[in-house]
Amino acid sequence: MLQLLVISIAIAAIALSSGAFNALWTASGFALIGYVVTDSLIPKLAPFFTAKGLFGKDMSKVGKPVIPETIGAITATSYLFLMFFFIPFAFYKYLVVATVGGGERGAGEVPSLGSDDQLALFPHDKLAGFLSAMLCLESILLLGLADDFFDLRWRHKFFLPAIAAIPLLVVYYVDFGVTHVLIPSWLQHHFKDQTTIELGWLYYVYMGSVAIFCPNSINILAGVNGLETGQAVVITVLLLLNDLCYFVFGSQQTWESHIFSASLLIPFLGVSLTLFKYNWYPARVFVGDTYCYFAGMVFAVVGIQGHFSKTLLLFFIPQIFNFIYSVPQLFNLVPCPRHRLPRFNEKDGLMYPSHAVFEKQLNPMVEKAMVVLSKLKLLEIVQREGRVVESSNFTLINLALVWFGPLREDSLCAVLLLLQFTIGLVALLARHTIGPWLYGYDNLFFSA
Amino acid sequence: MLQLLVISIAIAAIALSSGAFNALWTASGFALIGYVVTDSLIPKLAPFFTAKGLFGKDMSKVGKPVIPETIGAITATSYLFLMFFFIPFAFYKYLVVATVGGGERGAGEVPSLGSDDQLALFPHDKLAGFLSAMLCLESILLLGLADDFFDLRWRHKFFLPAIAAIPLLVVYYVDFGVTHVLIPSWLQHHFKDQTTIELGWLYYVYMGSVAIFCPNSINILAGVNGLETGQAVVITVLLLLNDLCYFVFGSQQTWESHIFSASLLIPFLGVSLTLFKYNWYPARVFVGDTYCYFAGMVFAVVGIQGHFSKTLLLFFIPQIFNFIYSVPQLFNLVPCPRHRLPRFNEKDGLMYPSHAVFEKQLNPMVEKAMVVLSKLKLLEIVQREGRVVESSNFTLINLALVWFGPLREDSLCAVLLLLQFTIGLVALLARHTIGPWLYGYDNLFFSA
Repeated sequence: MLQLLVISIAIAAIALSSGAFNALWTASGFALIGYVVTDSLIPKLAPFFTAKGLFGKDMSKVGKPVIPETIGAITATSYLFLMFFFIPFAFYKYLVVATVGGGERGAGEVPSLGSDDQLALFPHDKLAGFLSAMLCLESILLLGLADDFFDLRWRHKFFLPAIAAIPLLVVYYVDFGVTHVLIPSWLQHHFKDQTTIELGWLYYVYMGSVAIFCPNSINILAGVNGLETGQAVVITVLLLLNDLCYFVFGSQQTWESHIFSASLLIPFLGVSLTLFKYNWYPARVFVGDTYCYFAGMVFAVVGIQGHFSKTLLLFFIPQIFNFIYSVPQLFNLVPCPRHRLPRFNEKDGLMYPSHAVFEKQLNPMVEKAMVVLSKLKLLEIVQREGRVVESSNFTLINLALVWFGPLREDSLCAVLLLLQFTIGLVALLARHTIGPWLYGYDNLFFSA
Repeated sequence: MLQLLVISIAIAAIALSSGAFNALWTASGFALIGYVVTDSLIPKLAPFFTAKGLFGKDMSKVGKPVIPETIGAITATSYLFLMFFFIPFAFYKYLVVATVGGGERGAGEVPSLGSDDQLALFPHDKLAGFLSAMLCLESILLLGLADDFFDLRWRHKFFLPAIAAIPLLVVYYVDFGVTHVLIPSWLQHHFKDQTTIELGWLYYVYMGSVAIFCPNSINILAGVNGLETGQAVVITVLLLLNDLCYFVFGSQQTWESHIFSASLLIPFLGVSLTLFKYNWYPARVFVGDTYCYFAGMVFAVVGIQGHFSKTLLLFFIPQIFNFIYSVPQLFNLVPCPRHRLPRFNEKDGLMYPSHAVFEKQLNPMVEKAMVVLSKLKLLEIVQREGRVVESSNFTLINLALVWFGPLREDSLCAVLLLLQFTIGLVALLARHTIGPWLYGYDNLFFSA
């Protein structure tokens, strides 16, 4: 009953949308449909995943219950097919013009756009870009599934997103080819007073790195009920707030790429919220690497195609911190246990920072650094006979527990999500206040 | 060593290709690379499929050995990523023009093509079409995997190709929108002397049907080592011969869509030949529904986007016959056993037609029809006490054994493939001799 109501509202939003931002209304309609559809699919299909061996044990619950795994595949597939149906709506005005023009168009003909049509700001000439984004997302879904199914090794799976990004980069190469970046005004005198610098193929390396970073960084900050989906939802909301800044304060020239971004993000928010509901404490489903990769790639795609990949990275500060903070263990400066998830105490039902135990004496320099970190409240250490014998594991999740713990799993997740949102909001404000000062102007007001 | 040589030849073909047909040379290079790459991937990855439960028993061998299943997923994935890399080559001239034009292009700008550039006949303005083809193929790969993994029921899997075809049809709608068909000249006076008839949305139903038919028809004619891949290879060769007809005898206007078709088919031939090698008697791998669907969808895509879907169906005559011939059993006019594969005789190692045994008296009309079919050598029946108690199962494979059997499995496959090739070749000749007479002209010489 409620579902019917939501679907009706969605259809109304799609049907009645018009004007400059019609793509956004349509996208909102699709988000509602996506929410309802995945909400009905997940409980129906999840048991089949368990039956076929796709399940995991929830280590932070009494009795370690078996939970269906890789359910993000349902979300991702729903999203993709939703976006296929979105195409005619996104390119609606183009269609109307083409039809009025009368029948078949020949090679190279471009329908002339009247002033009314220019109001429809979705980039009509960017159909290829949209399709390449979908190809990239479908590829990461496929590779994510391969990862979840075959349990790939870290050194293999780390580069999967780069492979999935190939269609995106190739079509970027064929279709856009913009490979220059702005130079901050206070640096321009080092570059013969140029305002931009041409990076050429290095720009493709940069985009490839963004495509590798976003999916992996979400996949690494994981292991607590609701955290994978929660952080994706928070980042989506932050990116939408950034788009909103452009719609409210920006000039009309800046709208196009942000309508593109919002059109992809709004339906993604819809399907992700459903998954969040099922993945929230106590989790009824696990999302799998598939979802983490997919979500990260959605962000990489909108950042790259919308030309705001540097702003994008501002919303990944907790993930970047988590990665840098992990380096001592990842590179074995400090011994790294096989699992670094926080420790669940069955007696009080709370989560505690998990510890790495050092059998051998650590390098004195490393020990000294750890003592400093501990004084800065960035680490919990146990000293015995003048040497460090234990420390909390080097992850943001454990650090949150060092600061605020012990916490129940849902509070831990909430703390981490709040942290993500707060930092992101501050970064967003900084982006539009300090950014313009650094670069000489903000593209909120001037199109780059 | 040999691999290095092949790769070198491939690179040479790609690097040195130029002129009107450069896309075809490039595609040939990619086909060689595809062959070599899948040839090295299949034996490496196949054991992981078996380990994860993706295997089947080969019922037509002594001891029913366990064979890895769904290996077509490797072929299909290789093909897709190969085609992603193909994009810049296919759209090369466009790139050159765009670059000469200088930097970023604005909305709606189209680089003017010089006469030299018009020689490069790959449809440059059809990037969106190419990408939608890839999306459609990647979607059928995804859905095929779901089918192989979850063992979907017939009534569900039958429509999977229609779902995968959505991006293709949607972009066709947005980008081409050609929904009229030619009327044969001798029928035109019934249509107020129009030469074409506008089908509108019915044309989308038709394209959807083609997309459902091709994948399913290949999936139904299966179960003999080498047959799934073999028929795909034969149909690919026939379609390439059809393209060749246009290149040799056709006018320049007809080249474009056939270069598109050949560009997709040549690399597909490369990767399919590898799979054929491993799937040929005695099979070392099974291809899975994934490959059958994927192959069928490749054909549907080139037929639909190249506007020769009616010609395409001529190359599916054995599949169409197989379907019609199966109808009595599919609709339970004649009792249908669970498996209709030919019977393997362990003693002589040969294949015999498998029989359906009728416990109950059949409908007298059906019996009479079966006696007639048997006299026409279209069925093998066993009569006892004046009633039909057994008959060969209603599949083309069993019929081939009624005609030519018993045969060893590889001879059976060869017979079926030869049949497919011969009928296709005759149909191809008929298409370009009787076709023009029916329609008033052949688009070999005039662009439709």
